[in-house]
Amino acid sequence: MRENRVRSIWEGGGVALNGWLHVPSSFSAEVMAHAGYDSLTIDLQHGPPDVGSVIPMFQAISTTDVVPFARVNWNDPGTIMKLLDAGCYGVICPMIEGRRDAEAFVGACRYPPQGYRSYGPFRANLYGGPDYAANANETVVTMAMIETKDALEDLEGILAVPGLDAVFVGPSDLGQALGYGPGMDREEPEVVEAIGQIVGSAREKGLAAGIFTASTEYAGRMIEAGFNFVNVSSDAHLMADAASNAVAALRGRRPPS
Amino acid sequence: MRENRVRSIWEGGGVALNGWLHVPSSFSAEVMAHAGYDSLTIDLQHGPPDVGSVIPMFQAISTTDVVPFARVNWNDPGTIMKLLDAGCYGVICPMIEGRRDAEAFVGACRYPPQGYRSYGPFRANLYGGPDYAANANETVVTMAMIETKDALEDLEGILAVPGLDAVFVGPSDLGQALGYGPGMDREEPEVVEAIGQIVGSAREKGLAAGIFTASTEYAGRMIEAGFNFVNVSSDAHLMADAASNAVAALRGRRPPS
Amino acid sequence: MRENRVRSIWEGGGVALNGWLHVPSSFSAEVMAHAGYDSLTIDLQHGPPDVGSVIPMFQAISTTDVVPFARVNWNDPGTIMKLLDAGCYGVICPMIEGRRDAEAFVGACRYPPQGYRSYGPFRANLYGGPDYAANANETVVTMAMIETKDALEDLEGILAVPGLDAVFVGPSDLGQALGYGPGMDREEPEVVEAIGQIVGSAREKGLAAGIFTASTEYAGRMIEAGFNFVNVSSDAHLMADAASNAVAALRGRRPPS
Amino acid sequence: MRENRVRSIWEGGGVALNGWLHVPSSFSAEVMAHAGYDSLTIDLQHGPPDVGSVIPMFQAISTTDVVPFARVNWNDPGTIMKLLDAGCYGVICPMIEGRRDAEAFVGACRYPPQGYRSYGPFRANLYGGPDYAANANETVVTMAMIETKDALEDLEGILAVPGLDAVFVGPSDLGQALGYGPGMDREEPEVVEAIGQIVGSAREKGLAAGIFTASTEYAGRMIEAGFNFVNVSSDAHLMADAASNAVAALRGRRPPS
Amino acid sequence: MRENRVRSIWEGGGVALNGWLHVPSSFSAEVMAHAGYDSLTIDLQHGPPDVGSVIPMFQAISTTDVVPFARVNWNDPGTIMKLLDAGCYGVICPMIEGRRDAEAFVGACRYPPQGYRSYGPFRANLYGGPDYAANANETVVTMAMIETKDALEDLEGILAVPGLDAVFVGPSDLGQALGYGPGMDREEPEVVEAIGQIVGSAREKGLAAGIFTASTEYAGRMIEAGFNFVNVSSDAHLMADAASNAVAALRGRRPPS
Amino acid sequence: MRENRVRSIWEGGGVALNGWLHVPSSFSAEVMAHAGYDSLTIDLQHGPPDVGSVIPMFQAISTTDVVPFARVNWNDPGTIMKLLDAGCYGVICPMIEGRRDAEAFVGACRYPPQGYRSYGPFRANLYGGPDYAANANETVVTMAMIETKDALEDLEGILAVPGLDAVFVGPSDLGQALGYGPGMDREEPEVVEAIGQIVGSAREKGLAAGIFTASTEYAGRMIEAGFNFVNVSSDAHLMADAASNAVAALRGRRPPS
Repeated sequence: MRENRVRSIWEGGGVALNGWLHVPSSFSAEVMAHAGYDSLTIDLQHGPPDVGSVIPMFQAISTTDVVPFARVNWNDPGTIMKLLDAGCYGVICPMIEGRRDAEAFVGACRYPPQGYRSYGPFRANLYGGPDYAANANETVVTMAMIETKDALEDLEGILAVPGLDAVFVGPSDLGQALGYGPGMDREEPEVVEAIGQIVGSAREKGLAAGIFTASTEYAGRMIEAGFNFVNVSSDAHLMADAASNAVAALRGRRPPS
Repeated sequence: MRENRVRSIWEGGGVALNGWLHVPSSFSAEVMAHAGYDSLTIDLQHGPPDVGSVIPMFQAISTTDVVPFARVNWNDPGTIMKLLDAGCYGVICPMIEGRRDAEAFVGACRYPPQGYRSYGPFRANLYGGPDYAANANETVVTMAMIETKDALEDLEGILAVPGLDAVFVGPSDLGQALGYGPGMDREEPEVVEAIGQIVGSAREKGLAAGIFTASTEYAGRMIEAGFNFVNVSSDAHLMADAASNAVAALRGRRPPS
Repeated sequence: MRENRVRSIWEGGGVALNGWLHVPSSFSAEVMAHAGYDSLTIDLQHGPPDVGSVIPMFQAISTTDVVPFARVNWNDPGTIMKLLDAGCYGVICPMIEGRRDAEAFVGACRYPPQGYRSYGPFRANLYGGPDYAANANETVVTMAMIETKDALEDLEGILAVPGLDAVFVGPSDLGQALGYGPGMDREEPEVVEAIGQIVGSAREKGLAAGIFTASTEYAGRMIEAGFNFVNVSSDAHLMADAASNAVAALRGRRPPS
Repeated sequence: MRENRVRSIWEGGGVALNGWLHVPSSFSAEVMAHAGYDSLTIDLQHGPPDVGSVIPMFQAISTTDVVPFARVNWNDPGTIMKLLDAGCYGVICPMIEGRRDAEAFVGACRYPPQGYRSYGPFRANLYGGPDYAANANETVVTMAMIETKDALEDLEGILAVPGLDAVFVGPSDLGQALGYGPGMDREEPEVVEAIGQIVGSAREKGLAAGIFTASTEYAGRMIEAGFNFVNVSSDAHLMADAASNAVAALRGRRPPS
Repeated sequence: MRENRVRSIWEGGGVALNGWLHVPSSFSAEVMAHAGYDSLTIDLQHGPPDVGSVIPMFQAISTTDVVPFARVNWNDPGTIMKLLDAGCYGVICPMIEGRRDAEAFVGACRYPPQGYRSYGPFRANLYGGPDYAANANETVVTMAMIETKDALEDLEGILAVPGLDAVFVGPSDLGQALGYGPGMDREEPEVVEAIGQIVGSAREKGLAAGIFTASTEYAGRMIEAGFNFVNVSSDAHLMADAASNAVAALRGRRPPS
Repeated sequence: MRENRVRSIWEGGGVALNGWLHVPSSFSAEVMAHAGYDSLTIDLQHGPPDVGSVIPMFQAISTTDVVPFARVNWNDPGTIMKLLDAGCYGVICPMIEGRRDAEAFVGACRYPPQGYRSYGPFRANLYGGPDYAANANETVVTMAMIETKDALEDLEGILAVPGLDAVFVGPSDLGQALGYGPGMDREEPEVVEAIGQIVGSAREKGLAAGIFTASTEYAGRMIEAGFNFVNVSSDAHLMADAASNAVAALRGRRPPS
């Protein structure tokens, strides 16, 4: 079976650089797959892609050796299993509030007896190889988002769920859970401390830890803090910022009259 | 009828800043429409969008006051008329080799008696207003690409075609036509001279002049040279460059062990 | 943030005229958006559109100032949040059977601390404006469908849920719940009475009340009864009826021999 | 092979009632296919559908016994042949300016030796039956649009082209060709006379004659004038008019305060 | 209302031959609909189609008299009801673990008072006929998948649920539930015995029984064992196998040098 | 630049085994790409795919090392160039009637000075590599279809066009051109002789020769006759035949009563 390079990076002590896909197009996905990322995450929660968008996007990513991830929009086993069948190598699940949520999530990603995933890897067999079923449980990455008060309180319970590979921090919801407004690259001490607690506990237990950031500067600090799966911005925001900058550089210019 | 703001900018002596759309998605089109451009051009020639992609993309652009343009992939009246019916306010036509090509192109964009456009503005009536038909001939912008030797030789003939509003320079094909390799932001003296000849002749005759560039620096020089419709890069290239830069800034970093 | 004109109409004591979208096409959505409605509701429950259809349709609606609503096909927070992120300004939720259902529904539509909506308004920020997050809780409309016996019995409980803005009557399911067959524009006294009870209780508590009708005549009576969100037929039914009428007017005619 | 019921109607001296499809959706196409029409024409010229839209729409029509027609956006053999391969039973071709145009058009619709249609009826075999190839030349209907001055002048030449089955009048372009503005249901004597000349000459030569109208009243007059293929409005216009009427009937109503 | 021919076959003591659709295309669906099957099942669980894919595929099937079925990816009433509204005549539901799951599933497929299906058959009315609502409860087929240990243990409870028409065996999950690896056409005695128990109990109670097989040989044995709804392979696997065979037959051949 | 393996096979004296894609789905394209073919041809002429379908299908093929080809539906430079920009490595062009057609076709596939292809390889750069432009003229394969009387008469003229790499025989049109009905795997002596003449002349001039067949038996004979690009059936026909066989093997079976 094709290896999961994100796992290999983690085993080597490195950090996986992840790109984020909001544009529901296989063309932009292929463009992003040539930008140098280790993995690309299709965002089904806070982005346009839905279950019907992912196959062409996974195919576009699979023209390269970038690892295909997805964030689901809910802890829904029917959707999670379908994404895995389509060849997804890593699932980020939002709104994991405690151990039971984490067990349900991880179970949907693992074939029996470790979990309750139903068998039918219609595209995963093409992408992963004919021995997919025998190796999927050890290959697919499971990442639980820690972004609510309940999750912070049951963090140990979540981290103890067998088969959970990693946690992922959503800074905006986490900040809101702690009483602040939305926003990325948090500097509020209370939020920074919570982030530190999450990465510390996760790495200590041998799990990986990921975070969404809005700048390479903050991402670099997060790597220093122990995160080994780091995302900077998204396809749409990178494009929007670059476009705005180009316009700003020329606005006000006039041809000679 | 809704005015064509690109025309208004030209009449005011300004330069229209144009964005270029390769990603065949209405979501990325809407993102680009909020970046500050005056107009956005959907590229049906050297980009993924085809005739079936344009309506959702034009609709996305029309949620703002950015002016919707398109580049067709050939001087084909059936396609040109269909784009106009869909609400396109400006058509860039490649491979105009001489006066006859220009006449065929402009005629497809104008209702009789100025041209031979067939009547049926199925979406243009919604976008432009109920008086679309009466004003379309004076509103829609026609831009002929000058990018071959034949075009350079018949430049005066092309510029003299009634109803032609502007020329557009494709630096890569123009460079190839003059014996150089492909590339943007040309510095070869012969190519620079040809570009100067095109913009000079066009502006002298009262036509507008547009060019595709790869950097704001070169775009600024082109505005100095007289161009009043300037494009910098494309949605996909802006995204790819920003993504590559983000990866490069973090590559090699490792979390503390 | 862009205001929600449906709220403004309600505050002014008026009635919002709503159109219903079954055809999963951004073109027909734009046509309907020019017909004069105050709001348009994309029906994800009993119509072809699904989550993958809504962005182009919302974009089409957003080319005008018509307010974009959607009816979800279930009280599912993952879907509700995704529609809101896409710029939906009003959600109609079917099968609200009691207070707990209503609380779950409203919570999915409100950011903390009022609810548990996750942050990530990928298109709502473009449509609503950069201050979307700060104002969304007061802008987005929540409408609970009252269409089962349980809902009628817990009507007071439902209406008391903080953050619920309105109720919406589905006459067919309501009629079936009361032992009658399906159908619109009900005249059975028991159903009429239940409808009257719903609108009366809702308006008394300061909530708005909406209903689906099949004719302007019945819709007029419903406005008299106190409804301030009224829908007549749907895009597909309006088209089908008009087409059948045109055929009927000509069927049997023959050209002279 | 499945018969072409439009031909049967013509042979019986009747008039085929045609519906017009602008909405590029297989759902609305199926709704229209249940409205009672004899045939439905997908408009690839002045409507959103393009070559990529037609197969699902033809399939939707084929769930009934309504005959599938299409109007191409240009006299382009590659497109015409592809539509026929997809199961199209009648082609309306715009901008036929004279005998040569008509010959090129008809030839693209006929297998050798009558024409130069290339063999490969990938869906027509499923729709028409396994004996499609042997009978297609006698089954597929060819309709040439007469809408320009050149066409009026060479009308006899056009009508004499072997294999041409019918003419089709586009009143808006025809009116513009004669110096008037665009519009349907023409009353200008000169236009009315030209329409009379077209239908008279066509029917006299044994060809059928079709026309696009905007009302059943005018359509009735056109049947009296000899037209035996009559279209009234389109899916989108029927829907828009019905929606506007519903809004107008309720606008200004207010619930009791 | 259009009859459900699968029910008729069962009532006549026959076996319904079912085809399986993984390719999310209305064209391949129509090709499969001409291959002679009694029914075709769109697989939303372990195949690419999702809710957004089914309408064009159902339309393609409805160009013939093949009966349209679907397998949902979860026991989710919102999805089940939407498929039924789209004209689905039979639903296969995975992961039915006991009586309560079966009741929830069957209830979603039946209008009150037998179930809690919401009214709005937007396409089912077109496909089934205007009397759809009155007859749907007796027409739509409900099939519960028996594929887990819990299901085997509560088999009698599941079979006793009023309105359940049939069971369906997924051999791969069933085998895994019993401690074996994934695979079709099981020969392990324990699995064979479980299959025998399922079909025996179901048929004894008057229910139908279906199974997925990978070969006509095994399918024949299953018919002998009492199954009266039998599926062999899928569109994608039939194509893949035939293509591999064609390549293998020619690989190694060389033209004469 | 990524090599064109079809060229390498030809240079090694072998035969390229080609698969044919009619199903407009990236999923079925990926399935076919794993069946062992050397190349896959998307058929835009006599199949459902159009220009809007090819990018996801090319991406699906590009997840393997199978070489992506396409057959255009007409000798149209705008379409040919767009397919090449999308990463197409071989173009089959129908209806080449003589030297001039062949020159126009080949010119559209070659950058200046060899041809008139416009520069803008938006996806070809991703697929082929950053040095695509410098090597494309020597990499892309051009295949002219010989299928009419005119083509047979000007065969030498066609074969002499610089830059033409191969011919391709469409047996159905060729048979019709010679006065026979449509059909594959021709046995009529006159057609067989024409086929022999085409392959003989082409190979003698150093060009490759391809043919469409319906069986591996006939394909084998064609390899013996000198063809070094051989296609057997298509995705849709392989699937249809396998499905029909499966149904036939079970039809008439009944479960024991």
